Amino acid sequence: MSVLIVGSTALDSIKTPKAENPRLLGGSASHAAVAASFFSPVQLVGVVGDDFPKKYLQLYRRHGIDLAGLQIKPGKTFHWSGEYEVNLNNRRTLLTELGVFETFSPVLPKAYQAAPYVLLANIAPALQHHVLNQMRRPKFVVADTMDLWLNIALDDLVKLLKRIDGFVLNDSEAHQLTREDNVFAALKQIHKMGPKYVIIKKGSHGSILSGPKGFFICPAYPLPKVVDPTGAGDSFVGGMMGYLASAPGAIDNNLRRAMIHGSVVASFCCEGFGLNRTTKVTRARLAQRVKELEQLTRF
Amino acid sequence: MSVLIVGSTALDSIKTPKAENPRLLGGSASHAAVAASFFSPVQLVGVVGDDFPKKYLQLYRRHGIDLAGLQIKPGKTFHWSGEYEVNLNNRRTLLTELGVFETFSPVLPKAYQAAPYVLLANIAPALQHHVLNQMRRPKFVVADTMDLWLNIALDDLVKLLKRIDGFVLNDSEAHQLTREDNVFAALKQIHKMGPKYVIIKKGSHGSILSGPKGFFICPAYPLPKVVDPTGAGDSFVGGMMGYLASAPGAIDNNLRRAMIHGSVVASFCCEGFGLNRTTKVTRARLAQRVKELEQLTRF
Repeated sequence: MSVLIVGSTALDSIKTPKAENPRLLGGSASHAAVAASFFSPVQLVGVVGDDFPKKYLQLYRRHGIDLAGLQIKPGKTFHWSGEYEVNLNNRRTLLTELGVFETFSPVLPKAYQAAPYVLLANIAPALQHHVLNQMRRPKFVVADTMDLWLNIALDDLVKLLKRIDGFVLNDSEAHQLTREDNVFAALKQIHKMGPKYVIIKKGSHGSILSGPKGFFICPAYPLPKVVDPTGAGDSFVGGMMGYLASAPGAIDNNLRRAMIHGSVVASFCCEGFGLNRTTKVTRARLAQRVKELEQLTRF
Repeated sequence: MSVLIVGSTALDSIKTPKAENPRLLGGSASHAAVAASFFSPVQLVGVVGDDFPKKYLQLYRRHGIDLAGLQIKPGKTFHWSGEYEVNLNNRRTLLTELGVFETFSPVLPKAYQAAPYVLLANIAPALQHHVLNQMRRPKFVVADTMDLWLNIALDDLVKLLKRIDGFVLNDSEAHQLTREDNVFAALKQIHKMGPKYVIIKKGSHGSILSGPKGFFICPAYPLPKVVDPTGAGDSFVGGMMGYLASAPGAIDNNLRRAMIHGSVVASFCCEGFGLNRTTKVTRARLAQRVKELEQLTRF
């Protein structure tokens, strides 16, 4: 089945202590869509300006991503520029030019409105609501978010939590949302706010699922060298949704393996700038790392 | 087979935002010995003053811990007092009275010198060397450490690394020792310093083993409430060594399950002050959590 992915489509200029890479393909929806495309057909909803490089449209297409929902507007594509510190754990934003993204209103082509799997990738909660308002009874809806929305759009986000099946956030956002330091206590609080499934991302420490079948402790793939972590969280959730949409049977029976597949796509994402490494991955390489994760966690 | 454990035996006064507990049984060797005692006979080497409460000697004995190597000297028992912040991640030392520990020189009773499994729990590296100097060809030697020794006894510690099979340290210590931010890169560096097995502890994020059979990602047991994390690392390594000494077959085949058992003992340690919770645990409860960890990580 196909996955509908709505989020930001951007150009990222990324500086690390070792390199500088201007105008890479970025944005939550770009990372998530490429990650999901390894497993399922993807429908992308986003907006870019008329300066958006053709090579990036070709890149989407090479991944079989349906672009009927990608708006191309007069003006500039959303441009984000950031710099990582030596340890790659801390980053600071150097520049944010919203461009055409400032007035983005996601419009779902008719064919998308019945999509069974929906990923509301990181984007303003009001826009995530707007997407759901256009949908007909999706089978499984997951939303991602970021600290910005907890700061400036908390009400919208809290309302959204009652409309989705799964919620994905990182550990510091979980703390910010619940004021709980303990991640398992935070998970309990977040369930009370609505979602049946809650996933807390912990970067190189992996992630934790809480759902009707209890907890799942999902490992991160061991990487002795991280080149650029930008988009790793989006790749994780994108890979997860792509795998879920491809797997027959109940969500509960597939979600753990879906997270593992997301984790593996995210590991490749971290090994190159932007989508450079992810786009070169094969299904066979993904399957190999899934197998390795099985061996790395077995006891 | 039995495990020889050498380390500190202390009285801990622990303050958390919710409670204050004076003069609990503490010290690296106490936590490790009780943890190991669930699986194997334990020989304890340490020192206490003549103020050491009889009830704590009885506690050791109830756990079948051999005290022939526990020196009781005129003077005061090592007393440590610390305070945890609200999130229990940061602690500060309020007071350290070394007492009889200041002049401690571990002396191994003859019967201990042929112990097959040796745990050099956290203690000055010079004393860890001194123990090894008294041993006859142990089968498996593991050393733990702390940031203090990296700061004031680095040369001794580096020399020790060439004499041991396994080295256990936490992630910030691994960073301090190698200047590597990436834990997998740090593991590689530490192997070059000597030990065949290196284990990096990451608190609630679990631990990572690096050895001849590659990496093992060991989960922490999910705890929605941590009462007092003091001694959790010592319990982990103690439980691990106790399990190893009890398991027939090659180290390589048992080390993963040994870490899991250590992780489970550590989880109970965190659920009470000092050794209050750990000492009430049964083998059946431990086995139950091991089984749960199997379910929590399966995919």
